[in-house]
Amino acid sequence: MGKHQKTIESLESILNARSVAVVGASNEPHKFGYMTLDSILRGGYEGKLYAVNPKGGKILGRKAYPSLSEVPGTIDVVIIVVPAKLVPTVLRDAAAKGAKGAIIQSAGFREAGRLDLEEEILAISREYGIRLMGPNIQGINYLPNRLCAMFFPVIKTKGPLAIVSQSGSVTAALSEWAERDGLGISAAINLGNQVDLCEADYIDFFTEDDNTNVIVMYLEGIRDGGRFLAALERASCKKPVAVLKSGRTDAGAKSAASHTGSMAGSYEVFCAACRQYGAVVMDDLMTLYDVAKALAGLKTPKGKRLVTISTSGGAGTLSSDEAESRDLNVPPLPVELKDELGRLDLSPLAHISNPLDLAGITADHFLQASRLVDHHDAADIILISFADPVVGGIKVIKTLKTDIKASLAVSYMGGGEEEIKGGLEIQKIGVPVFPTPERAIRGIAAAVQYARYLQTKKQGPSEIFSTDKEKWDYADKDQRFILEPEAIGYLSDYYIPYPDHGVAHSTEEAVEIADRLGYPVVIKVVSPDTPHKTDVKGVVVGLQSSDEVKDCFNQIHEDVKRAVPSASIEGILVCKQAPEGLDVIVGALYDPIFGPITMFGLGGIFTEVLRDVIFRVAPLRRHDAEEMVSEIKGYPLLKGVRGQPKYDTERLIELLMSISRMAIDRPEIKELDLNPVRLFENGLMALDIRLLKREASK
Amino acid sequence: MGKHQKTIESLESILNARSVAVVGASNEPHKFGYMTLDSILRGGYEGKLYAVNPKGGKILGRKAYPSLSEVPGTIDVVIIVVPAKLVPTVLRDAAAKGAKGAIIQSAGFREAGRLDLEEEILAISREYGIRLMGPNIQGINYLPNRLCAMFFPVIKTKGPLAIVSQSGSVTAALSEWAERDGLGISAAINLGNQVDLCEADYIDFFTEDDNTNVIVMYLEGIRDGGRFLAALERASCKKPVAVLKSGRTDAGAKSAASHTGSMAGSYEVFCAACRQYGAVVMDDLMTLYDVAKALAGLKTPKGKRLVTISTSGGAGTLSSDEAESRDLNVPPLPVELKDELGRLDLSPLAHISNPLDLAGITADHFLQASRLVDHHDAADIILISFADPVVGGIKVIKTLKTDIKASLAVSYMGGGEEEIKGGLEIQKIGVPVFPTPERAIRGIAAAVQYARYLQTKKQGPSEIFSTDKEKWDYADKDQRFILEPEAIGYLSDYYIPYPDHGVAHSTEEAVEIADRLGYPVVIKVVSPDTPHKTDVKGVVVGLQSSDEVKDCFNQIHEDVKRAVPSASIEGILVCKQAPEGLDVIVGALYDPIFGPITMFGLGGIFTEVLRDVIFRVAPLRRHDAEEMVSEIKGYPLLKGVRGQPKYDTERLIELLMSISRMAIDRPEIKELDLNPVRLFENGLMALDIRLLKREASK
Repeated sequence: MGKHQKTIESLESILNARSVAVVGASNEPHKFGYMTLDSILRGGYEGKLYAVNPKGGKILGRKAYPSLSEVPGTIDVVIIVVPAKLVPTVLRDAAAKGAKGAIIQSAGFREAGRLDLEEEILAISREYGIRLMGPNIQGINYLPNRLCAMFFPVIKTKGPLAIVSQSGSVTAALSEWAERDGLGISAAINLGNQVDLCEADYIDFFTEDDNTNVIVMYLEGIRDGGRFLAALERASCKKPVAVLKSGRTDAGAKSAASHTGSMAGSYEVFCAACRQYGAVVMDDLMTLYDVAKALAGLKTPKGKRLVTISTSGGAGTLSSDEAESRDLNVPPLPVELKDELGRLDLSPLAHISNPLDLAGITADHFLQASRLVDHHDAADIILISFADPVVGGIKVIKTLKTDIKASLAVSYMGGGEEEIKGGLEIQKIGVPVFPTPERAIRGIAAAVQYARYLQTKKQGPSEIFSTDKEKWDYADKDQRFILEPEAIGYLSDYYIPYPDHGVAHSTEEAVEIADRLGYPVVIKVVSPDTPHKTDVKGVVVGLQSSDEVKDCFNQIHEDVKRAVPSASIEGILVCKQAPEGLDVIVGALYDPIFGPITMFGLGGIFTEVLRDVIFRVAPLRRHDAEEMVSEIKGYPLLKGVRGQPKYDTERLIELLMSISRMAIDRPEIKELDLNPVRLFENGLMALDIRLLKREASK
Repeated sequence: MGKHQKTIESLESILNARSVAVVGASNEPHKFGYMTLDSILRGGYEGKLYAVNPKGGKILGRKAYPSLSEVPGTIDVVIIVVPAKLVPTVLRDAAAKGAKGAIIQSAGFREAGRLDLEEEILAISREYGIRLMGPNIQGINYLPNRLCAMFFPVIKTKGPLAIVSQSGSVTAALSEWAERDGLGISAAINLGNQVDLCEADYIDFFTEDDNTNVIVMYLEGIRDGGRFLAALERASCKKPVAVLKSGRTDAGAKSAASHTGSMAGSYEVFCAACRQYGAVVMDDLMTLYDVAKALAGLKTPKGKRLVTISTSGGAGTLSSDEAESRDLNVPPLPVELKDELGRLDLSPLAHISNPLDLAGITADHFLQASRLVDHHDAADIILISFADPVVGGIKVIKTLKTDIKASLAVSYMGGGEEEIKGGLEIQKIGVPVFPTPERAIRGIAAAVQYARYLQTKKQGPSEIFSTDKEKWDYADKDQRFILEPEAIGYLSDYYIPYPDHGVAHSTEEAVEIADRLGYPVVIKVVSPDTPHKTDVKGVVVGLQSSDEVKDCFNQIHEDVKRAVPSASIEGILVCKQAPEGLDVIVGALYDPIFGPITMFGLGGIFTEVLRDVIFRVAPLRRHDAEEMVSEIKGYPLLKGVRGQPKYDTERLIELLMSISRMAIDRPEIKELDLNPVRLFENGLMALDIRLLKREASK
């Protein structure tokens, strides 16, 4: 049995505990020890429930035991609300009572500078085989077991969403919205310090949990990038994962320099990695919720063609506007369909187009029109947009849910009593309902994106790079730039073309090399002290003759010395100048969370001014590399705009995969930049390489 | 008294009508004639109310008059629900009863092909001085007079928003949200066909209406661009206008060609025009609502520094993330402030930074922390983010509202009963409350944008171009391209530099001109049949000698003839080649709605691939031109990136203002492209001009 299978079983037995004890239960309503016990009671927990407090007496009407050891029989799970320093003792007592897990709400660990306490409880966990959730959490709620071990809120509406979150408030907000909308949740897990069980474990558990259809995550960081991605990939094959990651505007992510390292704000890399392994990534809390709702209730769309059917021109237009901007397709209706719609007894003010504006509130027209659209296979997704209350609308949705082949979503605009009640009833049927057309479209677009991921997945599973600390422990402080002539060796190992070249240590040698290569040539300084050669005038292009080479050989020494007086110049690299083409940048870096990463962008202003670059975690599957190439905003330049040539994207895709492989094979590569790589109509060539290498720390 | 002053008075007397008659009132609950009468009754109208129906009898418990003429006394306003063809008669009867206005709900006019009926009612309106709202509308609601003349919904919560909308459903949604949140509305106006009174009139009315603090508009088109902008400018000086325009993804707006005409999707021009005259433009209905709420309740921010104070790290981070991405400033807290906050009795888990995470729910800590932040002038806006219910929180907000100098907003996350109730109470105090931090930030950002507009306005009012049809009636079908040598004359009239040049009709003449100008030179074909010269190889650059000029003179004839065999070649333009620099595109076009428009963008891929272009309505004030230059994404290129030169933006700004002036002076210009304009470190030069001119149609 795999390690993660075992963890799933542990979590299963914790969340389905038949007996729990709240250690630190209190009689004072404003204390967490009271609130948690109260939540468990109000949540309707049906197992055995014990309150533990050294003072004994009664708490919330039940006997309080002075210590865990005095509780009769075994205890599956302890819920700990005592001060941090007492937690180790409670854990040992719990282990003695046969507990399989502990939910540690107590704060005062690493966040209060007590990393030692965390190490102590982890050691106890390992010694006794008791698994830990938290510490420093608002708690957890698992509805199949009616176990709401949380300060607040008490959520009782069981539904398809499992919420896993690093913020108790975000957990509360998502759960409460799901309850209010009649959608419901299967679970709510606050992550806290993740001393033992971590985000990857919860993903694995909910992947196997039949009560959960969608995993919804709010993350501030990642404890283990490799395990996270592996769990994500396993999950995404079975059910969607929607993620919101905070910190998208880190100062670090705003740096505008041009090398791979500085482009890779942790947020960009995080999003790229998540999408690569199937997650739907959002940047707004309400949209995360809408997307989760859509993923839970929308039948997997077969394509991205949307038809909106509404009571109102306004609602239909809002829907189409948002759909087009979210890469959905709003196709015109086929002529035969229009004819048949025209024969229905619609309002004379109806607009028979897409969006289809019925200009009326007759429920039966919605039913007939939707059936016709579906019958003509005119849509992959039908959005019914009730912009005014429609009497009988709910029955229509019920019928359509089972009748039509297309995916079905509803937007029920307005905030009147009728709309709220109607929305609730539709949600209960299992059709997702949104308060505006735009919010519906954002959810639908995410479902389409996930459906597309499931299709590309058919290319087979990926290998995920292990960031196992034992294996790849490199010390970033021992890093140095590799001189270009040496770095070129890395390229040839992977059959990446670089111009013919030689290294000269004298004017004569430079001229000799240039004469041999043929003109024009480029010369570049070779110095460990000038990683950005152009900034110190260390590169001269377009030398046409031996005289020019001679002049520039001396000039380049002078210029570099003027810019960096202490620079040690170890030679001059003389390269045959490449033909004209399109310059792009290809890079790799070692990310502390996800390991080797590859980057691609168009060079120059696209990278420096517009930050139009794409990241993927290595190793790349072929379709990952294809996506990298086609996702940049400047993609039309590669395909040839306005009479410009079409560049060799096939070789570019291969290059990206080679660089990805190199980054995996050579984890000592901290940063690698091929900038530029020059693309031709046939083939390509790396014209410059900048390589930052680390040493293994042992 | 100005024309618009008179219209304001008319609207005042209509909306404050003391006696109204519903013509077409009905006893059948599903009919609009019943619903409208019912809404007026339920809305609590206190003036005289008459039902008119030829059948007489009783409707909703009151006497129905068989005709208007039988109603006793005068009638201020008639509300018309009868079939379209009967409307002219009703209007004449109404005029006879002294009515000042008619609210025409009836449909069946231009939308049903009956433009003639619209002309008829407009003629009646002019003849009798009776002003018309509609036709083809769900109705209107004016709360100061408790006049809810609308099918539905009946909104009774009076508040600061005046809604003006082209969609009845959007009106209903916005009104219902405002009612549910305790915000309320002053009015809801559906525009319909705008036969008489139109969007500009309503803007003017609500600008003067003391019951209204914010004008909220949903628009699908504009009836009169010049009047709309003039009204917008008058309004924006007094109160904010928030606008959502549908149709942002028109197929037309997606064209990717490179000349000004094709770049100007009507949506882009519309948004640019609205922003230029002070409106806050949104692209999502819910955001429109949030922005309206913020504009109504947030004290005008003095700057854009935001401090978030929250119960929860998660909520604070979401707030900061959104703030940074909306161009708000999230400054670090000053050291002295941090010290003082540190001396408060906060939770040991509190994070004293911005966002400030109190890690607790003690109301008094919010009060103390906010006061300290304000005392140290650390924020222009303070966002209090309650992510969990805070006992006493409402009292704190009440105190802060009057105590602090900073603008104050609240985010109250979660959907529990407590949060909903708490949010309502805070909104009633007049502090805007939002359900997520991100939605709060979007509102705040809009308020900051409006505050900035008010500051730039101090540069003085603008002149708005009149699109008066009588004056500028040009027929687009009579348009033709002006040959470049002639078009250059337009430039010299405005002192816009163009290279020294001459037109040659023979090889000898070309060489003679080139010799005189000095090499290198550029030669271009002069032909009415090749407006895009480069596409037909009609431009050759970098000619270094008379021999090269000779060769190319012949070559260019051959190439152009091969591309367009029928092309008439009227000469060859020989220009002195300009020095290197940065190429940009500057253009003008005559927009059917807003008249002369100017455009600016970086040339090449920025324009063609990225559509990074900016529009403004002419005439430009200086700060408009400055904004155009600084708002393009490629702006860093103008300011010099990575050792590149800094270009002459001062001359560029002057050029934009000259082009704007030219477009105003010469309304025969349908499209003008200077592409490229080459910028130097000092000065600039138009290198090519493409001019499409129209003829006056009479």
